[in-house]
Amino acid sequence: MAKEVTNREDNYSLWYNNLVVKADLAETSAVRGCMVIKPYGYAIWEKMQHQLDSMFKATGHVNAYFPLFIPKSFLSREAEHVEGFAKECAVVTHHRLMKDPNGSGVVVDPDAKLEEELVVRPTSETIIWNTYKNWIKSYRDLPILCNQWANVVRWEMRTRLFLRTAEFLWQEGHTAHATAAEAIAETEKMVGVYADFARNYMALPVVVGHKSEGERFAGALDTLCIEAMMQDGKALQAGTSHFLGQNFAKAFDVQFANKEGGLDYVWATSWGVSTRLMGALIMAHSDNNGLVLPPALAPIQVVMVPIYKGEEELAKMREYMQKVGDELAALGISYKIDDRDNVRSGFKFAEWELKGVPVRLTIGQRDIDAGVVELARRDTLEKGAVQREGLAAHIKDLLDKIQKNIYDKALAFRDSQTRKVDTWEEFKVEIEKGGFLLCHWDGSKETEAKIQEETKATIRCIPIDSYVVEESGKCIYTGKPSARRVIFARSY
Amino acid sequence: MAKEVTNREDNYSLWYNNLVVKADLAETSAVRGCMVIKPYGYAIWEKMQHQLDSMFKATGHVNAYFPLFIPKSFLSREAEHVEGFAKECAVVTHHRLMKDPNGSGVVVDPDAKLEEELVVRPTSETIIWNTYKNWIKSYRDLPILCNQWANVVRWEMRTRLFLRTAEFLWQEGHTAHATAAEAIAETEKMVGVYADFARNYMALPVVVGHKSEGERFAGALDTLCIEAMMQDGKALQAGTSHFLGQNFAKAFDVQFANKEGGLDYVWATSWGVSTRLMGALIMAHSDNNGLVLPPALAPIQVVMVPIYKGEEELAKMREYMQKVGDELAALGISYKIDDRDNVRSGFKFAEWELKGVPVRLTIGQRDIDAGVVELARRDTLEKGAVQREGLAAHIKDLLDKIQKNIYDKALAFRDSQTRKVDTWEEFKVEIEKGGFLLCHWDGSKETEAKIQEETKATIRCIPIDSYVVEESGKCIYTGKPSARRVIFARSY
Repeated sequence: MAKEVTNREDNYSLWYNNLVVKADLAETSAVRGCMVIKPYGYAIWEKMQHQLDSMFKATGHVNAYFPLFIPKSFLSREAEHVEGFAKECAVVTHHRLMKDPNGSGVVVDPDAKLEEELVVRPTSETIIWNTYKNWIKSYRDLPILCNQWANVVRWEMRTRLFLRTAEFLWQEGHTAHATAAEAIAETEKMVGVYADFARNYMALPVVVGHKSEGERFAGALDTLCIEAMMQDGKALQAGTSHFLGQNFAKAFDVQFANKEGGLDYVWATSWGVSTRLMGALIMAHSDNNGLVLPPALAPIQVVMVPIYKGEEELAKMREYMQKVGDELAALGISYKIDDRDNVRSGFKFAEWELKGVPVRLTIGQRDIDAGVVELARRDTLEKGAVQREGLAAHIKDLLDKIQKNIYDKALAFRDSQTRKVDTWEEFKVEIEKGGFLLCHWDGSKETEAKIQEETKATIRCIPIDSYVVEESGKCIYTGKPSARRVIFARSY
Repeated sequence: MAKEVTNREDNYSLWYNNLVVKADLAETSAVRGCMVIKPYGYAIWEKMQHQLDSMFKATGHVNAYFPLFIPKSFLSREAEHVEGFAKECAVVTHHRLMKDPNGSGVVVDPDAKLEEELVVRPTSETIIWNTYKNWIKSYRDLPILCNQWANVVRWEMRTRLFLRTAEFLWQEGHTAHATAAEAIAETEKMVGVYADFARNYMALPVVVGHKSEGERFAGALDTLCIEAMMQDGKALQAGTSHFLGQNFAKAFDVQFANKEGGLDYVWATSWGVSTRLMGALIMAHSDNNGLVLPPALAPIQVVMVPIYKGEEELAKMREYMQKVGDELAALGISYKIDDRDNVRSGFKFAEWELKGVPVRLTIGQRDIDAGVVELARRDTLEKGAVQREGLAAHIKDLLDKIQKNIYDKALAFRDSQTRKVDTWEEFKVEIEKGGFLLCHWDGSKETEAKIQEETKATIRCIPIDSYVVEESGKCIYTGKPSARRVIFARSY
């Protein structure tokens, strides 16, 4: 194989990094912690964006755009928010460079110091609620259902491509409502949109649940999330939806005249997913040959590789493949004809496997004569002859089957790695094996912190749609009473 | 009218600002020079983006994403580039805030100073060519045809919504080629895409031409541009496409093995359009009643306003309008039913005129009985009855006519404001009247600078597809010989 990938079993972390780089998804840049998203990686992200965007619009949301910069003082307005986000961020202090008087380069112009420093947004609640103040006067101005697609920066010390980078791309929804009930319904609706997207497009069998107090978004009253399991048994938080109560409305003094003529503070939500989803997609499905992309998000769904001798045969094959391509396109299937003449077909096979193209067709003269083509599935690596007659329709069905198979496989894996644990001794052993541990917990922040300190495990969520175990029991750590099991795991 | 707009004739600048704010397109933010793009404005920008993106893809380009930050030293690598862009920019010097030891807020943590300052990208040539260095080894890796949709920051002192803001949204294409001829062809192809987009979607009759040396992009060997004329006779540069030669390849040492086995520096182009296009769109077509949007970019193409008495009549109208709406949607026409019951129809008429919706239908019971609806065109403000039978098809045709009419009107205006000027005395008089002045010029940077100093007029372009006058003459300023006329104007 042209571009070797480390075995997943030998070093999961290196396997992941190899995949990201060798499949041309992303690479590190000259700027610490910032990545370059390469065209093939960006094409997958674009498919995610388009799908999510249409789901947001179908649920009544509109897009807008708010400033990249946040005045430093805004961050201090909401007490918990500043704790969570002001720590590690990019701070703009000057607005000009000048020629170095002592050298050949440029230096910061000391005369161009800003009166108030600006922070590159780590998230936009503060600047947006400062804006909403001018948009909201009466209940008739509500709800506001805005989303923005943007870049954000959090100065992470240890970064990994897609999973944790200083700059990342995301969408952040910010909604304003007249009542708590409406805002809570919005929070639930959007985590539902995320779960739908993760399951039906990313083939990711996520668990929906509430975060514990300790894992909540800084400034939220409640955080709902979707949690996925990676193939090493670790959890990955793939999306969050926050009920913010009236915290930001109070911090930015956003009140509205209600129907009864009184003044109320506005109720808020925010919700987001990011390029981290790329990491989840890669780690959940890929194998030692490379990426395994769900057809719904694959930029190229079918690749055709011709086996030929000489220019004349290639010309005939090109014509043949173009016809197949036209039939596929007519059914909305994307394809690529790989007729490069400077690499061997074995190299091409390996490359498209590495890039996770769901279906590969190998076109040879003997097959053409026999009225068949050779078809290889990326998910199962199965190969076989398929009739040329009705090929496009066959592939359309097959792509649905592949999508379902990738999901089912991930679900079976997750179920196999999820188990009840009832004692602290058992917990310490089981957590080393990975997976989701369903445990009783006394509900306190302190206990959660101690468990994390001793085992690096955190509460991923209090599940509401899978693994829901409403039963009384005793906290694995303190023995205090508990009314339900929660999911503990180590996580990304 | 509910939201009054200053008359265009009284104060063009205020008229523009009023329009942007009152039509809910954008507003200033708490951050100096940064704007908030509101949902209605963003919806227009999204339509522009989608159309441009599909045109880029149709010409073989792919999207990618490069870091927001540029190490300070990168800017100094290309000598002219640093002159043009290092001056006014946002400089990140620290990566952490901390609690103010002497107060309640947060302050910059002096221990978190960056080793090298980062500049928020004013444009991305430097970071991208530093990346391309790793992508390009051989002629087989070329061409690279990347585009990115991104935000950029230039610390402008005097800002205006959309036209000149510190942060703006744009796309920047960056391509790499094996030969100068290929790169030049790309530069020309992309200015052609921009001209096509401006003319056929924005209804903007732009002139394509070369920039003079003095107006070139910092680091380019040649800059092609599209120049539009606003209704006050001033020019607006709406898009640029640069042939960068080997300047950036040399600055970042990007060489490739050519077919002959030798080493060559790579040839480059870059090209971009920004949210400035929103300013051009607004200023080129709108009137004292508000926006006039070309149907191709209008988020809502048809609005329906019911005239009714009581709930029962409204219910019947809703059904009627929904049926019209379904027929419009079937033809790919977007529509909105304005059935608000808390504002009068006169208010609605004014609001949708302000927002530039191309077609308004007024639905009354008498019209329904007579088998007609009242239709008002935004571009001409004409009103009349139209048969209900075949209404959707009629509107489809009409939208095409409106699109053409808006273009034709702008073209006729531009032509009426373009004239030959042959003497310096005449020039000084004519430039005060606005418009494009076709003049002879001796080709020197010095002359251009002097003309600008004395009259604030610049060379908008040396036109290549309209107003091309290849004739010998004498420079209006120096009397030196000239081989062709160029376009002088005052500009945004």
